[in-house]
Amino acid sequence: MPQKFWEDFDIGFKFKTASITVTETHVVNWACLTMDFYPLHVDKEYAAKTVFKERVAHGPLIFGMAVGLVGMTGVAADAVIAWLGVDSLKMRAPVKIGDTITVEVEVIEKRETSKPAQGVQTWRYNVCNQRGEVVLTCEMKFLMHKKER
Amino acid sequence: MPQKFWEDFDIGFKFKTASITVTETHVVNWACLTMDFYPLHVDKEYAAKTVFKERVAHGPLIFGMAVGLVGMTGVAADAVIAWLGVDSLKMRAPVKIGDTITVEVEVIEKRETSKPAQGVQTWRYNVCNQRGEVVLTCEMKFLMHKKER
Amino acid sequence: MPQKFWEDFDIGFKFKTASITVTETHVVNWACLTMDFYPLHVDKEYAAKTVFKERVAHGPLIFGMAVGLVGMTGVAADAVIAWLGVDSLKMRAPVKIGDTITVEVEVIEKRETSKPAQGVQTWRYNVCNQRGEVVLTCEMKFLMHKKER
Amino acid sequence: MPQKFWEDFDIGFKFKTASITVTETHVVNWACLTMDFYPLHVDKEYAAKTVFKERVAHGPLIFGMAVGLVGMTGVAADAVIAWLGVDSLKMRAPVKIGDTITVEVEVIEKRETSKPAQGVQTWRYNVCNQRGEVVLTCEMKFLMHKKER
Amino acid sequence: MPQKFWEDFDIGFKFKTASITVTETHVVNWACLTMDFYPLHVDKEYAAKTVFKERVAHGPLIFGMAVGLVGMTGVAADAVIAWLGVDSLKMRAPVKIGDTITVEVEVIEKRETSKPAQGVQTWRYNVCNQRGEVVLTCEMKFLMHKKER
Amino acid sequence: MPQKFWEDFDIGFKFKTASITVTETHVVNWACLTMDFYPLHVDKEYAAKTVFKERVAHGPLIFGMAVGLVGMTGVAADAVIAWLGVDSLKMRAPVKIGDTITVEVEVIEKRETSKPAQGVQTWRYNVCNQRGEVVLTCEMKFLMHKKER
Repeated sequence: MPQKFWEDFDIGFKFKTASITVTETHVVNWACLTMDFYPLHVDKEYAAKTVFKERVAHGPLIFGMAVGLVGMTGVAADAVIAWLGVDSLKMRAPVKIGDTITVEVEVIEKRETSKPAQGVQTWRYNVCNQRGEVVLTCEMKFLMHKKER
Repeated sequence: MPQKFWEDFDIGFKFKTASITVTETHVVNWACLTMDFYPLHVDKEYAAKTVFKERVAHGPLIFGMAVGLVGMTGVAADAVIAWLGVDSLKMRAPVKIGDTITVEVEVIEKRETSKPAQGVQTWRYNVCNQRGEVVLTCEMKFLMHKKER
Repeated sequence: MPQKFWEDFDIGFKFKTASITVTETHVVNWACLTMDFYPLHVDKEYAAKTVFKERVAHGPLIFGMAVGLVGMTGVAADAVIAWLGVDSLKMRAPVKIGDTITVEVEVIEKRETSKPAQGVQTWRYNVCNQRGEVVLTCEMKFLMHKKER
Repeated sequence: MPQKFWEDFDIGFKFKTASITVTETHVVNWACLTMDFYPLHVDKEYAAKTVFKERVAHGPLIFGMAVGLVGMTGVAADAVIAWLGVDSLKMRAPVKIGDTITVEVEVIEKRETSKPAQGVQTWRYNVCNQRGEVVLTCEMKFLMHKKER
Repeated sequence: MPQKFWEDFDIGFKFKTASITVTETHVVNWACLTMDFYPLHVDKEYAAKTVFKERVAHGPLIFGMAVGLVGMTGVAADAVIAWLGVDSLKMRAPVKIGDTITVEVEVIEKRETSKPAQGVQTWRYNVCNQRGEVVLTCEMKFLMHKKER
Repeated sequence: MPQKFWEDFDIGFKFKTASITVTETHVVNWACLTMDFYPLHVDKEYAAKTVFKERVAHGPLIFGMAVGLVGMTGVAADAVIAWLGVDSLKMRAPVKIGDTITVEVEVIEKRETSKPAQGVQTWRYNVCNQRGEVVLTCEMKFLMHKKER
């Protein structure tokens, strides 16, 4: 793939990732790996008595998978120098076991830095389920290479 | 453990979690589970040529583990109704394979809501390594039960 | 949490852990990790012809999860110097995929040792399913710190 | 077990392995470990629209499990010096989540080498499901010890 | 393999399993699967200050792997009706990351039951490391098929 | 990405995948998932006495990872209707824990089928390590979409 730069992504640029089904295996392996055994995620009996009626995937799992799905597209990999962080990460709707998620990405902010070879961009991730409902949103900030002149 | 409420956590309240070593197994299992195979995390040869000189743990992995470590303390579980999201999540320093992390938590914001039985709090998580350096910071927002009157 | 000692746990003291659902993922990952591919646990066709009618979780898996659930309560962690072993571990009823387990712990034995700073205790673990049936019982022995005088 | 040699396996010799159920956990863990997130394997919505109607296990997963099932029988372990490779590996029918596989092995070729202490054999693996349908076939070549004279 | 029975295993019968190296991956995956994050197993900094100087594998992990290693030999699988439990399970020496374990099994007890078709046996498992040191011992009880007459 | 077809890949077309380090975690998780506990892969003591001097990754693991690495490039995903199988899969050199692999792909065969809308191609995969040595080769056959006319 050709090298990409800060200049190649304008505000309003959008793309979509591949999709993946969030399985019970993801939820159990996640609980294990991150030590997050909150009963809504790992205790069927508890979950059945909540408003959700069943176990719900961990929010940070959906965030982690969103980061991976975007990375797998290869859209920006070469352009990114560093991940500057995330803001406004919010769960919008529960992700249940068996739901299939896709990430819709949009460039929403773009600015130069004091270094002529580096720029910053903010990309909004909307994670959607198989019914098109938005389940998680967040704003990712990246430091990017600018074209040399 | 006794039931806890919004009223039980004042601005300035602090606590610390247990510690855990971030191993190669965590990094590999994470890459797998979230499909994040960015070479800095999974390719030794690539990583050796970066400023980090070696593979670095994924930022969202450290965030996920921080959420789990705080949950395992049991400090607030009963008080929390829902996780409202996270802001200002930033990596401050690289976490390398073999580093050991601990989370220091501080209540930094607290407000009532329109519902008398529910309040909101913001907790700052400082994730530190074995040398006491802060490696990740973020601000978690929780909806909490208030005491019934 | 305040430091706990041998003196803090009297015969008859009881507590209960959190609960967790034993999933197919647990059973498959367990078979993998411990190389226990006995067909009752991993072969649906074989299991369907047994008295159990379906796959059953490995006994040592339920034991391992019981140890973890008790540890996560934090009730005794600081007091324990070493795990001296387990006796009378028995499966009382099958644990099927989808069952949710909880551990009820009771201190059943307590004695001093030749060292004034160390005592021994035996704790009985009753692992129960979501219908309150006991599925596994065992007696765990711990070496514990005594209060300094 | 007694040491086995090239001479102990004649053309036409057959044996069968134990059986194992291919679960969603296998498919998800496989996708993770080998980075093979092709949607037919990991995206329920996509798979529902294919001729298969549901997710299908990865072919190389079935191959990998076949290798393991044959190894676990212990039939030839001592006789084998090295695995020379595989030919004619083909999927014959889809393996769906919940199918149970068994491997039927037959020695189909046998020849001496230039070294008097080593011979070569080709073993055909037929992987079958719980309905006796062949789902994968391949021909494995092994370098083997010959009896010393 | 030919069917085996209670009569085929006399007191004093001994056999040895294959060996396996206990890796950091086993310890981390175990902690995850069983929720046992006791710092001696998962916190390098903590472990360095103990008498062990480094992380030690969980006792129940070594027990679980011993059960699997014995099962993989296939020595008794067909003869066993049910696992009646375990007694006198004790850690004798620490297992460190990188140690290689083998199980030595000996039949130490054998008795008839009220049912003419069923007998009971106790098998002692001695788990040894690569230096031949015994690291775990336990006594496993099995219900077994007797030969029909 | 634009839709690709059989016509888009001519004999001699070459591309390279991303790289990944094969870790102890991969080898242990692989042994677990496929039940392949051959001592050369999982027993350090045994492996130390072989010509390899240390544990070697499973051949089918390297094959599985090669399939995944090629899939992640996205080069051909849309063009492929089905995987017809693999031939001439051979290990050329051992892959040791810590080695980093890359796949070089070359189209080596191409033919029409009786159906005007489908063609077949054979792609050779050369898996190389960080020193550029070829460690595994195989020939993958794919059924592909032809352009509609």
